[in-house]
Amino acid sequence: MQPVSVFIKTIEVRLQTGPDIADITASLQRVIRESQVISGQLSATMVGSTGSLTTIEYEPGVVEDLKRAINSLAPPGMEYEHEKAWHDGNGHSHVQAALLGPSIALPVRNGRLKTGTWQQVVAVNHDNHPRTRAVEVTVIGALE
Amino acid sequence: MQPVSVFIKTIEVRLQTGPDIADITASLQRVIRESQVISGQLSATMVGSTGSLTTIEYEPGVVEDLKRAINSLAPPGMEYEHEKAWHDGNGHSHVQAALLGPSIALPVRNGRLKTGTWQQVVAVNHDNHPRTRAVEVTVIGALE
Amino acid sequence: MQPVSVFIKTIEVRLQTGPDIADITASLQRVIRESQVISGQLSATMVGSTGSLTTIEYEPGVVEDLKRAINSLAPPGMEYEHEKAWHDGNGHSHVQAALLGPSIALPVRNGRLKTGTWQQVVAVNHDNHPRTRAVEVTVIGALE
Repeated sequence: MQPVSVFIKTIEVRLQTGPDIADITASLQRVIRESQVISGQLSATMVGSTGSLTTIEYEPGVVEDLKRAINSLAPPGMEYEHEKAWHDGNGHSHVQAALLGPSIALPVRNGRLKTGTWQQVVAVNHDNHPRTRAVEVTVIGALE
Repeated sequence: MQPVSVFIKTIEVRLQTGPDIADITASLQRVIRESQVISGQLSATMVGSTGSLTTIEYEPGVVEDLKRAINSLAPPGMEYEHEKAWHDGNGHSHVQAALLGPSIALPVRNGRLKTGTWQQVVAVNHDNHPRTRAVEVTVIGALE
Repeated sequence: MQPVSVFIKTIEVRLQTGPDIADITASLQRVIRESQVISGQLSATMVGSTGSLTTIEYEPGVVEDLKRAINSLAPPGMEYEHEKAWHDGNGHSHVQAALLGPSIALPVRNGRLKTGTWQQVVAVNHDNHPRTRAVEVTVIGALE
């Protein structure tokens, strides 16, 4: 058992009209390196209610399959109550993001993110226009 | 890097027959204030297998849209194996809650929860009767 | 407020062809006992992009209902882009796992995992063949 420290960072990611999916694994690795944490956990949270975080094998096929599945969960063309008051065309975006969830917790081992070889951390924009999304990252763990 | 402390609290939220959705953001802000943590993370976990946590823009339209989407994922009227043994009418509640997930991790910055301006943390009751649900909150971070 | 320590552990769980669901609650309780953490949180993350973690009431009916719901989200028989390049037959596995999510955060109270009486933590294998899956566990909290 080791005493632990905390390190915080905001990362930004440019995303196209949703569902768009970006690999943020390298950015998270940089945050861990900067934190100097060797052993502990990283949590990341999407700021805003039309974005989400998860992990996938980041290759074009899975990215396309996941986009389709996300649009099946809450199709863009359907009628949404959110639209009736706000008329901003993103009722589906809110539902999609709520179902996927805004946060993720990941292991830090030997000073690096430990995920599977074909498992990348991704940020998803569900909004109906391109957005630069902020992800808040917190690393908590031992420095040796 | 700062040494970190831990603070725990149980919050309770009264919810109607599921899917019902309550904004718990203010309760979490109070827990953070009480914890005196300035910088770190808050994790929250729904106690019980027919509830879940996520974030949404908490306005009546999105709340209604999310309720409908949740009931599409696992409709109340369908046949469930859980019913055959237990006859408590909440087979759909269990499936809905498992798909949304019981936990969330959120950033604490400058002594406050940092979410988007239109992003609230919500507790969802999926059960087929009103319930006062407990949410376990853990704040870990630096006090200065 | 107490100073906190960190403890890490890898647990392994044998799972059949997906969707298969195993109760890992007892394994997590053992990790907490070994960590000597009394008060804090446990985070767990599925290693690999075709597995996920959530909580359910672990009884045969719910297990069966959840398997069906998972296969409805992304049915095994559909056409997936992932297949066109990789031909490994698990396009649905990737989508299912991404939607459920790889991680969970849980409260540690009085030296034990605090979940509901009928709420167990489960690991899900979505892959199209049996796998021994690794789950990375991080316990952070106070030792007294």
